[in-house]
Amino acid sequence: MTTNPSLQLWLYDTTLRDGTQREGLSVSIEDKLRIAHKLDQLGIPFIEGGWPGANPKDVQFFWQLQENPLKQAEVVPFCSTRRPHTKAADEPMLQAILAAGTRWVTIFGKSWDLHVTAGLKTSLEENLAMIRDTIEYLRSQGRRVIYDAEHWFDGYKQNPDYALQTLTAAMTSGAEWLVLCDTNGGTLPHEVSQIVESVISHLSLVICQKPTPSPQIGIHTHNDSEMAVANALAAVMAGATMVQGTINGYGERCGNANLCSLIPNLQLKLGYSCIGEHQLNQLTEASRFVSEVVNLAPDEHAPFVGLSAFAHKGGIHVSAVERNPLTYEHIQPELVGNQRRIVISEQSGLSNVLAKARTCGIELDKDHPQARQILQRMKELESQGYQFEAAEASFILLMYEALDRREQFFEVKGFQVHCDLVEVKETTNSLATVKVAVNGKNILEVAEGNGPVAALDAALRKALVNFYPQIADFELTDYKVRILNGHTGTAAKTRALVESGNGQQRWTTVGVSTNILEASYQAVVEGLEYGLLLHFQAEKALKV
Amino acid sequence: MTTNPSLQLWLYDTTLRDGTQREGLSVSIEDKLRIAHKLDQLGIPFIEGGWPGANPKDVQFFWQLQENPLKQAEVVPFCSTRRPHTKAADEPMLQAILAAGTRWVTIFGKSWDLHVTAGLKTSLEENLAMIRDTIEYLRSQGRRVIYDAEHWFDGYKQNPDYALQTLTAAMTSGAEWLVLCDTNGGTLPHEVSQIVESVISHLSLVICQKPTPSPQIGIHTHNDSEMAVANALAAVMAGATMVQGTINGYGERCGNANLCSLIPNLQLKLGYSCIGEHQLNQLTEASRFVSEVVNLAPDEHAPFVGLSAFAHKGGIHVSAVERNPLTYEHIQPELVGNQRRIVISEQSGLSNVLAKARTCGIELDKDHPQARQILQRMKELESQGYQFEAAEASFILLMYEALDRREQFFEVKGFQVHCDLVEVKETTNSLATVKVAVNGKNILEVAEGNGPVAALDAALRKALVNFYPQIADFELTDYKVRILNGHTGTAAKTRALVESGNGQQRWTTVGVSTNILEASYQAVVEGLEYGLLLHFQAEKALKV
Repeated sequence: MTTNPSLQLWLYDTTLRDGTQREGLSVSIEDKLRIAHKLDQLGIPFIEGGWPGANPKDVQFFWQLQENPLKQAEVVPFCSTRRPHTKAADEPMLQAILAAGTRWVTIFGKSWDLHVTAGLKTSLEENLAMIRDTIEYLRSQGRRVIYDAEHWFDGYKQNPDYALQTLTAAMTSGAEWLVLCDTNGGTLPHEVSQIVESVISHLSLVICQKPTPSPQIGIHTHNDSEMAVANALAAVMAGATMVQGTINGYGERCGNANLCSLIPNLQLKLGYSCIGEHQLNQLTEASRFVSEVVNLAPDEHAPFVGLSAFAHKGGIHVSAVERNPLTYEHIQPELVGNQRRIVISEQSGLSNVLAKARTCGIELDKDHPQARQILQRMKELESQGYQFEAAEASFILLMYEALDRREQFFEVKGFQVHCDLVEVKETTNSLATVKVAVNGKNILEVAEGNGPVAALDAALRKALVNFYPQIADFELTDYKVRILNGHTGTAAKTRALVESGNGQQRWTTVGVSTNILEASYQAVVEGLEYGLLLHFQAEKALKV
Repeated sequence: MTTNPSLQLWLYDTTLRDGTQREGLSVSIEDKLRIAHKLDQLGIPFIEGGWPGANPKDVQFFWQLQENPLKQAEVVPFCSTRRPHTKAADEPMLQAILAAGTRWVTIFGKSWDLHVTAGLKTSLEENLAMIRDTIEYLRSQGRRVIYDAEHWFDGYKQNPDYALQTLTAAMTSGAEWLVLCDTNGGTLPHEVSQIVESVISHLSLVICQKPTPSPQIGIHTHNDSEMAVANALAAVMAGATMVQGTINGYGERCGNANLCSLIPNLQLKLGYSCIGEHQLNQLTEASRFVSEVVNLAPDEHAPFVGLSAFAHKGGIHVSAVERNPLTYEHIQPELVGNQRRIVISEQSGLSNVLAKARTCGIELDKDHPQARQILQRMKELESQGYQFEAAEASFILLMYEALDRREQFFEVKGFQVHCDLVEVKETTNSLATVKVAVNGKNILEVAEGNGPVAALDAALRKALVNFYPQIADFELTDYKVRILNGHTGTAAKTRALVESGNGQQRWTTVGVSTNILEASYQAVVEGLEYGLLLHFQAEKALKV
């Protein structure tokens, strides 16, 4: 579908404000700055940066952004209306958002009568005055105003007349956008459609009676009913022109509307214009960048941007996809910067291996004898329980070996582990001895640890660091274990995945054994080996 | 909203078939049986068990289910129509689903002309014959038939006439349900509404012209556009009466429609009748049970059933929620068996503990001092990483302890493990020493094994079997390990789940430690203890 330029929508990202309400997510000012610049590149026109009145750290964010301003996006501070029976000009919160020095500000107010009387404990009339005074004051200070109508849908369902009065108050006092919020996330799409339509017709009526600049309608949804994206689409189709959401759908409870799903649905399927095509194809990267910065594992099954979103398993299915992707894919993955993935699994063929080698920077011809050898070896290992989907570093080592290019930095001779948990429970309850050889010289080394794998890792590093001092910079950043065939009980095979890092890069290696310690050891060993490979490759590249 | 009994919907769970297509998910036959029984308890009327024609292991699943049948659910095998130019009666795949011995079968066929000509490489007419012959043959063998129209929405958009011909073929040959599938997951709700409405009016027309038993319409959606749940709702509101989905939305790529969101939306918000109220409030537990069995971390932010779904942060918000939950919660969390969580004060839970105790056959009053003690102890352990959803046996032991009813069959004094993998790779590379006391007598025992956990298990049995000969019948049937906080590398905490059996019953126990061997050991020890508890309870019951 081609984009119709008349169907312009405005995206409003609130990852940095509502998104950070997600349990378990915390960001520093530097993290927020990095994310803001990424969103700016992505072409998001409005970026909500925080609530300076409630969170003093957010003030600094706006100041630091002035030093290194965004290219195209408007950064927006967020704040509530003034409190009951105060003067807007005297509200410290409002002074704080003025101090942020932005062109636009977002003000939220109460739409639901119950929240006014039971929550704010004030009169319905005073709430209307709070909305009017706040917006008029900010307008008088030269700000353009976006008005978020909190609990809009619930409030409208309970008392539509009053809810509409709050919107009218915001509109007549100069708000340019009225954003309808499904704060509790309980509304369903057919209700959103009906309510957005009635709001639009009500406001037209008000404007006819008393000519006022016509505001535009926005939508802000939460995912408590798994409807956040569907509700936002329903609102847009009913006439809303601003869509609020967060990258990866981060947000309180079940999250906010996920911009990574909203943008491609709006742009590729409904023909609205949100961001440029060259920006849309940065979407997957932006999603992963944000999850990296906030230190949350990316959702591999996320629509459009997930690692598995366009994954196909072997067999007939794969050849059908390759003949005509349209038959098994709802969009071209490249449009959102994702890619088709032929899952490297037992069924995978030579072309999968070549494709995988290519992504690792190795060009192999399919007639190259070693290409078949890699495939052969991979299948052998996979039938033993190895899995290279997530362990690219181990796959690269395997390829280098088949190509006779695997350098032997050290040779593993074996290990012994001793755990002692008789009565005494010390934190260093495990002792590991490793035997490795470097340049033909045997080294025996021993270390303690809290658990056998920690002890093994410590002993290995101790044995190797004199030969390879860069090992001191390596660290083990993640460790996962899966029992492969649980039903043989404790004699089951175990697969260990180890993620290592050197401060700049991260890589994952895999080990498999019926002995859980040996599986872990294999993965730790390959993690060190791959780190050394990266180091010496970088060194060689520098010399050339 | 009260449920209107005339708005009856039929749920069709495909966790065990489509759900297992999720990358990274694999289940054994025993896992599938446990999930099937859980779905049966939950009141799901149709459970798709697998594709016996494509996967020989699925044949065994159906056979084993006949030994231990479900209480109310129909278990259904899944299969494609016959291949082009064969006879249905000669198709081994169809023989395999007949051999499953079920009342109902599900057959899928092609709706999209492109898939017929380019995929199957046959004529459009032959595809219609394949649908007719297959359904007629299965009807002649006494089966009731559900017809899944694969790629329905894409096919209909490309060639509505042909797509409707495929449905007519299925209907006139005796299918009782016609299920419209959004196989690629690319359709949006407004399209689903329109298309379902046209299908229903088309079929009424066909029935008027040539009286035929009227089939009902089902919906099967995928989440590639983050629309699976919204699309299913749209179909139901347009007249579909069967909803297909999976627990936790597991499925290929971005997953299937999530029954854990669909059921409460349909039942609590739209007033349809799906499962009983006493079943709806088991939904959260069922969701976590399934994620535990398939060994995937539960999604804490999942709508309705996630740990964070009703989490409130401190401050005004919380007191407002407590005064009037309606103001900040879209449904009462208890209706789906979840609970409000006040994030900071970590309060709650007593009634959950009482409910849990009740399911284990222990009636406790909430004023019973030990009820609070159990809660206290459970929270302590959960904050350390223990988890009792799937480890009921460990929970029962914990309750018996709080009630002073835990018998001490043996006392654990500790263990030592020694693994030796220097050069020699024998299969018995591990040696475990355990120290236990029975009736005040210390026993030191040693055993070998292929891996440290197998050695530990062997040593424990050897130490105890002279005192408790019934231990010879116990076996370790499953073993799972999860690293809880991966980001501290090998020093991370580990949770081990061990399933044990005695030939008649199975039970699961849990252990947690930074030492992977200690976590496993704890779970193995409690597995033996619980087996002894069961044995002596049964003996006592016999004597009485």
